[in-house]
Amino acid sequence: MAKIPYKTYLTEEEIPKQWYNIRADMKEKPDPMLNPATLQPIKLEELYPIFCKELCRQEMDNDTRYYDIPEEVLENYKMYRPSPLIRAYNLEQALDTPAKIYCKFEGNNTSGSHKLNAASAMAYYAKKQGLKSLTTETGAGQWGTALAMACAYFGLGLTVYMVKVSFQQKPFRKSVMETYGAKIIPSPSDTTEVGRAILAHDPNTGGSLGCAISEAIEVSLQDDSCRYTLGSVLNQVLLHQSIIGLESKTAMEKIGEYPDIVIGCTGGGSNLGGLMASFMQDKLTGRKNPRFLAVEPASCPSLTRGKYAYDFCDTGKTTPLAKMYTLGCEFIPSANHAGGLRYHGLSPILSKLYHDGYMEAIAVEQNKVFEAATLFARREQILPAPESAHAIYGALQEALKCKESGEAKTILFGLTGTGYFDMNAYAQYNEGKMTDYIPTDEDLQPGFDALPKVD
Amino acid sequence: MAKIPYKTYLTEEEIPKQWYNIRADMKEKPDPMLNPATLQPIKLEELYPIFCKELCRQEMDNDTRYYDIPEEVLENYKMYRPSPLIRAYNLEQALDTPAKIYCKFEGNNTSGSHKLNAASAMAYYAKKQGLKSLTTETGAGQWGTALAMACAYFGLGLTVYMVKVSFQQKPFRKSVMETYGAKIIPSPSDTTEVGRAILAHDPNTGGSLGCAISEAIEVSLQDDSCRYTLGSVLNQVLLHQSIIGLESKTAMEKIGEYPDIVIGCTGGGSNLGGLMASFMQDKLTGRKNPRFLAVEPASCPSLTRGKYAYDFCDTGKTTPLAKMYTLGCEFIPSANHAGGLRYHGLSPILSKLYHDGYMEAIAVEQNKVFEAATLFARREQILPAPESAHAIYGALQEALKCKESGEAKTILFGLTGTGYFDMNAYAQYNEGKMTDYIPTDEDLQPGFDALPKVD
Repeated sequence: MAKIPYKTYLTEEEIPKQWYNIRADMKEKPDPMLNPATLQPIKLEELYPIFCKELCRQEMDNDTRYYDIPEEVLENYKMYRPSPLIRAYNLEQALDTPAKIYCKFEGNNTSGSHKLNAASAMAYYAKKQGLKSLTTETGAGQWGTALAMACAYFGLGLTVYMVKVSFQQKPFRKSVMETYGAKIIPSPSDTTEVGRAILAHDPNTGGSLGCAISEAIEVSLQDDSCRYTLGSVLNQVLLHQSIIGLESKTAMEKIGEYPDIVIGCTGGGSNLGGLMASFMQDKLTGRKNPRFLAVEPASCPSLTRGKYAYDFCDTGKTTPLAKMYTLGCEFIPSANHAGGLRYHGLSPILSKLYHDGYMEAIAVEQNKVFEAATLFARREQILPAPESAHAIYGALQEALKCKESGEAKTILFGLTGTGYFDMNAYAQYNEGKMTDYIPTDEDLQPGFDALPKVD
Repeated sequence: MAKIPYKTYLTEEEIPKQWYNIRADMKEKPDPMLNPATLQPIKLEELYPIFCKELCRQEMDNDTRYYDIPEEVLENYKMYRPSPLIRAYNLEQALDTPAKIYCKFEGNNTSGSHKLNAASAMAYYAKKQGLKSLTTETGAGQWGTALAMACAYFGLGLTVYMVKVSFQQKPFRKSVMETYGAKIIPSPSDTTEVGRAILAHDPNTGGSLGCAISEAIEVSLQDDSCRYTLGSVLNQVLLHQSIIGLESKTAMEKIGEYPDIVIGCTGGGSNLGGLMASFMQDKLTGRKNPRFLAVEPASCPSLTRGKYAYDFCDTGKTTPLAKMYTLGCEFIPSANHAGGLRYHGLSPILSKLYHDGYMEAIAVEQNKVFEAATLFARREQILPAPESAHAIYGALQEALKCKESGEAKTILFGLTGTGYFDMNAYAQYNEGKMTDYIPTDEDLQPGFDALPKVD
């Protein structure tokens, strides 16, 4: 039998033509979003002022199993997809493991991550509805960059509220977004009521993702030709990101493989949610029984140490309530944490699957994460994003277990993106200055105490 | 007939198994390198202390048409090659041109450019010869990153002399190289005689590529288990980079295409030299008659305004003399120039071909270059390196000529890499602060006056 190539690509014609909605195959559905004022389930129409209509429908739809990907989105996908399924031969050799390690690499596009898969869909539906512009927030900048690219492609305006401290520390991310025509505003700003109120209270604040979300929503609510967008957590995002897993499954079928375990990093859950979807379908329907492993940072351990409870999706408490694993929307991860995965909660879909026992989770300290990243960079020649390196760490652990047991398991993990914009963190690690942080139970308690009281 | 895909990939098995040596098909060979002390042609043995033996042979060999790519290098190539041949449909649409625009994109690897093709070969031959380490210099950092990756892969030490001003301005590039295990020294340094002499004369100097080359060579000469490497200009580099054109030609054959014109940016000539090689073979042997266009910066116009003369390859005047188009090795491009392409000379092979009328050249101001880069980024969703954007500008001009004439010509250009590490320049352009600089004849005269006197 021919050796499996380093990179398995589908052709552009083989790109899946439909997204897969994992909710359709879940016996127990995620609990509904609640209106925080009434604590009643949100109605579709209540979301229309925030998201464009088709995205509201996708957000609320627990039943439709497959959604046709619009032709225009498919054309955009063809410009940077299919992404390669990589066989990490050199990593296997370095570990001396009988395991077969595969990763689905989503970093070969200018946004540097998988975020473009959802951005493209959201920009398309907004354009189709006749909207003129979108707003969003960005922290590290990957989501903002992806949405800026998609808005340039589909011809929409975009205003990005960028957390002020990131705006100051990552001027290059700002410049990339501006090159794509987006308007970038450091948050908090004087362009919104919520921003002005925060600035009046603390003129020197570096901002937060929660505040940026609140500003982006406020602006979109004031202009009926504008809507808000979010790049993770939401059900619609997991739907769009299902393209990752669908492609992976087809590519693995081509080379006669199927994963024994699927591993992903989790912040809001957009990558693992997308990567795992079609394999989880096999598990939910009894066709196969792969394992699923979420790897989160020890500094922000929503799955391994959080509560499964109703909570706001933003720190500003302006969104509907979602049932998810959460550290409380007031939880702020340690400033020492490098890269993304800083979200207080996790996708309600992933949370429900974890709660129901379909998925495992571990939390890792960041020195171990960067050790894994460095090994991967040197052996596999791809510099991973710190987020991705959590998944790499998980894959290494599983591969080393195989070395112990002698089992030739097939491991698939999500290589979400590249680390070009995270070199400050790599430099810290290279210089031995990176510190680990694990919150104590006392550190976590205030976030839990502030959870909204539901029932 | 099926629509040509956005991206044409060869399979890993279809990667060419041989490099092509264009010198074998040149009726008039490039003039030989001279020993600057004797003005006699360099002998093979005189190069052995500088480069490893096989690379010396390749450097001097005007006759061998094809070189087998070593199996170990092919395995490394398979990790990031074949690179995609991209059909720029959206750019064609934006220009409303009947021209068909293709580009060969070399940026989808962590070094972000084509430089890895030569770095891999050089690291392999050094390892095979039993050497322990390599030295090199780097300015913008692309070459240093590529060589750091290759040395990590083949298990060699690497010391990179990085121009001090770049070391200070581009700390992220340094961190990437360190992640791959390389030692980075800002140049001039106190680790070499030449460095100490320069520092004694001017302790605050920001350094220059010429000085970094001199330091890297000095260090390699003192250690017989170490050799020096250079990522452009050399004949061996064009040999290794021929993989770009060989892949392009095979991919174009697959989709029934052949370029009417091949366009590339030129600094030292490594990308255009590699992209054009197998198409130039067709022209040299009378099989086809494509045009070739070099696009250089107006601020460093070695082809369009330089002399065809013997000159040093470095500012420090430590190398053999090469016959090439040059602005004089003492020429320092304006500090306003963004990105690479700052070299005073050009590959002797490309210089000879240009001198003999096989190639055309234009020089472009940098605001026009960034205008082209921005259009390309928005329509084709790839953020190009400023170097690449010179080639994009050339392609746009040719495509607009086709719009005038109604001709559906096939254009192929080299998209050398990504612009992630050049966002300062993009920011300048976005803010309207980028300035153009065209040296006057008086500006150029001192460089010409200082050319070595040969005959």
